Amino acid sequence: MILLDGKKVSTEIITNVKKELENINEKIKFAIIWIGEDEGSRIYINNKIKKCAEVGIEGLLYHLDENVSEDEVINLVNELNAKKEIKGIIIQSPVPKHINYLKCCNLIDYKKDIDGFSNISVGNLCLGNPYHISCTPEGIIKLLEYYHIPIAGQNVCIINRSNIVGKPLFHLLIDRDATVVMCHSKTKNLKEITKEADILISAVGKPKFITEDMVKENAVVIDVGISRVDGHVTGDVDFPNVSKKVSYITPVPGGVGPMTVAMIFENILKSVKEDHNG
Amino acid sequence: MILLDGKKVSTEIITNVKKELENINEKIKFAIIWIGEDEGSRIYINNKIKKCAEVGIEGLLYHLDENVSEDEVINLVNELNAKKEIKGIIIQSPVPKHINYLKCCNLIDYKKDIDGFSNISVGNLCLGNPYHISCTPEGIIKLLEYYHIPIAGQNVCIINRSNIVGKPLFHLLIDRDATVVMCHSKTKNLKEITKEADILISAVGKPKFITEDMVKENAVVIDVGISRVDGHVTGDVDFPNVSKKVSYITPVPGGVGPMTVAMIFENILKSVKEDHNG
Repeated sequence: MILLDGKKVSTEIITNVKKELENINEKIKFAIIWIGEDEGSRIYINNKIKKCAEVGIEGLLYHLDENVSEDEVINLVNELNAKKEIKGIIIQSPVPKHINYLKCCNLIDYKKDIDGFSNISVGNLCLGNPYHISCTPEGIIKLLEYYHIPIAGQNVCIINRSNIVGKPLFHLLIDRDATVVMCHSKTKNLKEITKEADILISAVGKPKFITEDMVKENAVVIDVGISRVDGHVTGDVDFPNVSKKVSYITPVPGGVGPMTVAMIFENILKSVKEDHNG
Repeated sequence: MILLDGKKVSTEIITNVKKELENINEKIKFAIIWIGEDEGSRIYINNKIKKCAEVGIEGLLYHLDENVSEDEVINLVNELNAKKEIKGIIIQSPVPKHINYLKCCNLIDYKKDIDGFSNISVGNLCLGNPYHISCTPEGIIKLLEYYHIPIAGQNVCIINRSNIVGKPLFHLLIDRDATVVMCHSKTKNLKEITKEADILISAVGKPKFITEDMVKENAVVIDVGISRVDGHVTGDVDFPNVSKKVSYITPVPGGVGPMTVAMIFENILKSVKEDHNG
């Protein structure tokens, strides 16, 4: 069994982004729009801005009152779209209920849409012509590729159908010639399906959801779940038992999580290079 | 075994569109952009324009020389976007090689994008917020719904991964709580997968591709294939043998084909109503 070391791979990627940005030698800004006071978001945003500083990007926080109108958010997005030095814009989720998150994301210039959440970004991916791609699915593909795990012709099972994880991942895998089945809470015979998967990707958010009997011998298991149990972060996979059976597996923490963060910076670098060359 | 009669269902839909358009009592135009002289396209376009007339829509053909520049096509799309009386625009495929088909489709106003091929239309569908949807997948869903065939919780196998059929169909089915597997030419164990499908949808274009031994007892079989054998149109399914085993099946011709045409008119009606009410 080989551990897919997302921490190591993400560090390599971020180091490379830093080096490339130093060579470009341009002031680069990245805007985070945060509406309201969600505590989880605060920690997440602080981490992003700290990481930005480490690679030489200035992270700008636009912290809006939770009663801000949708029009004000839209105006801010348009303003940030127009600023040349801002290479990336993200709107931190969750947003207050009176704000249409999807509508606001759709207004982000697709070249600055680092999260890849807008309808244009998603449509381009779906049509086989991606620009920015949602960071978690992109990070999973990068991790598989780093370890030279074959994707073409493999049977892949994704347990997740969200706009952010399952759906973009589906398109990335189909474009790489995998046969892909998407499962979710309404799937009637989950175990029968997961047992046939050469690559099993779970993003459910329930500890020990994936047990040994659900996994094929020598499968590759990618654990995207994040739960907290007794103060510890854990994934979907019953790791001690499943890991004995598989060829490759991601740990949680230290697997997909760090890859997601690394992809944010890869995507910003992409926008910077595009601007620089175009 | 029950035959899914696309001809009958499509006639009902078109009759309804005609009635609704009569009530709205407005001059409605639909633009088809045709570049070059492809013979198959000519027949297809003439049929569309004739059908338009039958429901009270004026079909306008913009026939461009095969050497037209991409900029000229783009200008025409922009011009048609701006005309209020034009409720729908499609660009007939195939286009000459020097024209980027996807780029031109992406410029069609999403409210007039009857084919649902643009990145915005596709992204909206993928994000669970569809406006216009590609006509063949939309027609297949309408046909299943007409016959009250359950989709939620069913195992569906799609053999096709095109932008026009397989991918939009995948999203429509996932949004309706089906468990969906997408197969294609690189799938290694196709028969094992198709045999598990409650609903099997094939869009391969090879006669007798789907044989009896690939189909589960009492499955629903949707045949999207179109081939010509000895001057006759035939689908992917070995109909005489497969039909004995299934609960529902589409004939070819007279199954999915007419549903595709009906959806063009449903989509135009949608644009008209949107304009009328908004």
